[in-house]
Amino acid sequence: ETISDASAALVGKGRHRHFMAKEIEEQPEVVAHTLTTYLNPSEGTVNLPETGIDFSNISRLTISACGTAYLAGLISKYWFETLARLPVEIDIASELRYRDVPYQKGEAALFVSQSGETADTLAAMRHAAEAGVTVGAVVNVTQSTMAREADAVFPIKAGPEIGVASTKAFTCQLATLACLAIAAGRARGYVTPEREAELCESLLKLPRLMNDVLAHAEEFDRLGTLLQPARDVLYLGRGVSFPMALEGALKLKEISYIHAEGYAAGELKHGPIALVDEHVPVIVIAPRDAHFEKTVSNMHEVMARGGKCLLLATEKGLEAAKTDEPLLGSFAMPDVDPLFSPLIYALPIQLLAYHTAVHKGTDVDQPRNLAKSVTVE
Amino acid sequence: ETISDASAALVGKGRHRHFMAKEIEEQPEVVAHTLTTYLNPSEGTVNLPETGIDFSNISRLTISACGTAYLAGLISKYWFETLARLPVEIDIASELRYRDVPYQKGEAALFVSQSGETADTLAAMRHAAEAGVTVGAVVNVTQSTMAREADAVFPIKAGPEIGVASTKAFTCQLATLACLAIAAGRARGYVTPEREAELCESLLKLPRLMNDVLAHAEEFDRLGTLLQPARDVLYLGRGVSFPMALEGALKLKEISYIHAEGYAAGELKHGPIALVDEHVPVIVIAPRDAHFEKTVSNMHEVMARGGKCLLLATEKGLEAAKTDEPLLGSFAMPDVDPLFSPLIYALPIQLLAYHTAVHKGTDVDQPRNLAKSVTVE
Repeated sequence: ETISDASAALVGKGRHRHFMAKEIEEQPEVVAHTLTTYLNPSEGTVNLPETGIDFSNISRLTISACGTAYLAGLISKYWFETLARLPVEIDIASELRYRDVPYQKGEAALFVSQSGETADTLAAMRHAAEAGVTVGAVVNVTQSTMAREADAVFPIKAGPEIGVASTKAFTCQLATLACLAIAAGRARGYVTPEREAELCESLLKLPRLMNDVLAHAEEFDRLGTLLQPARDVLYLGRGVSFPMALEGALKLKEISYIHAEGYAAGELKHGPIALVDEHVPVIVIAPRDAHFEKTVSNMHEVMARGGKCLLLATEKGLEAAKTDEPLLGSFAMPDVDPLFSPLIYALPIQLLAYHTAVHKGTDVDQPRNLAKSVTVE
Repeated sequence: ETISDASAALVGKGRHRHFMAKEIEEQPEVVAHTLTTYLNPSEGTVNLPETGIDFSNISRLTISACGTAYLAGLISKYWFETLARLPVEIDIASELRYRDVPYQKGEAALFVSQSGETADTLAAMRHAAEAGVTVGAVVNVTQSTMAREADAVFPIKAGPEIGVASTKAFTCQLATLACLAIAAGRARGYVTPEREAELCESLLKLPRLMNDVLAHAEEFDRLGTLLQPARDVLYLGRGVSFPMALEGALKLKEISYIHAEGYAAGELKHGPIALVDEHVPVIVIAPRDAHFEKTVSNMHEVMARGGKCLLLATEKGLEAAKTDEPLLGSFAMPDVDPLFSPLIYALPIQLLAYHTAVHKGTDVDQPRNLAKSVTVE
């Protein structure tokens, strides 16, 4: 399967060199659109469609997907657990569908897929539905098989995504899942109306902050030249930034063919630090949150072993992380509610992959061996 | 922390060049010892110590650990779910301890650590105990802090492990967790006495089959020369072989400094296949199980894109997977109960990493930047 010429022609790249660049830049707008689909800005409340999942009454939530959508699901596990005190089982769809999952009474499950046609995700959803689980589909294409078959559909409203490497679909999946987690928290009595209003405000600030990051997008052209010669790259993060490390690595791998790998920063000493030398750049994702000091301390361990680090943190964070040894590079990020930081840290991660690939001269929108939707197993 | 001279001197390498080689070879013996600690060969029953965890009466089991021990835990998730229909939450200890985990009434948790002193695992165990969860420690060192503090202790009986890269501790962790999963299945009414006897028999066959593999260990000397020039390697597997892919990559990374990465084979098309070319060998772990055809089909996709594959499968499996294009290499594995295949597929994975590292001339027992037990965060 290649890019659908029909939809690509319909959409067009506008002034952009690639669909991916265009789709990265659209994020403030489409994320705002997604957010206002699920939350009422003037009241500061989340309002879900009147379908399907009664979060007040479930014992466990299963979330499953493939690729980037899986990573959006993994981030939302932190949200559902923190905001709604709801145990979340998260698994790669190709694994979940073949495990004999012990679903229990009163469970619900969410399946995330841009196309709504991903073969493994669809099969895992059908399997859960057959087991009597209430299933929700978080999809971009509302005419898709998953949307038709699910008990509840949560459209992510990203608009057509043409680039094979997912960008705006990822952040719109996150925006949708964040709203669902807030709604679950309210339904279960863990999110008060005041807290709900605060959370909505945090989310509604994000599109503007995304624009602030995009205003400095040209810096990633230079940072991309630093990654371009690398054959291997590591990404590190903790908490919600751990899945972001995985996503950063996936994005770079997909379009630049550099072997990038993401790791929970706490696992560094349990293996991957053996790889570290001056030839393996390490990208450190460290928003100002409870994990900040520990992640920066992992970065210093990498540097003490000759590793070259590129740090994504707030201005204050960059200041606090300073050492005698200079960083390979850094980018100053806006301060946001740490819980929702993935929505904004997605941008530097995408831009870094994009510019590195452009410098390498790879086919950004249609990388080798990959298809936009994986409709076979 | 370096190798403890005292314990290394006490143990000695015998006729082996490295502790790792010695510890790989000890596995049939120590795994047999572990198995007979927990199961009665003549009766075909599992008999746990009279302590702590009442599996019949819990709603969910949390398992957590770091590094290789985490991967043993991930494999056991499949076992607990299949044999005991018990939902298992598995997470890296450095992530679990900082997430605000919504433990519910009547939960239990297992924490796995060779040393029993791993900082993040100990902290995660304490956190769970404070939340009122019944905690079990699966440890090698029974004098350790984790063993002292846990409600129940399950010694893995591997004997002193000196090599930094875990080998026999991993298979003994698996043997212990397999017995626990059978006991849980019996306690919850999903494993009949007949099935229990069958499962015990399957497990008790493993030490002899491990010896059969070790009898051909010299083949890995040759296979190691094939991996030695690689800078990047991928490992693929499905089901219980997915964590084995992760473990294979971790082992190679730790001691040879080759950037190896493990993937669920079903995720191949969602990103990593973009990396595939003739310079990135792909190790495929495909025991004769329900996933065999699909994993082999993933291997064929890799080969169709110029990738070089090394296949670990049974003799029949190797036959069935044949193509016009020759494999980079293969090793014929004994036929085992697919459920417990990780215990035996651990050997080729360890031998491959060991011989590759020996050919590269790295310090196998004390790889750069790594310590045997990680007692800081």
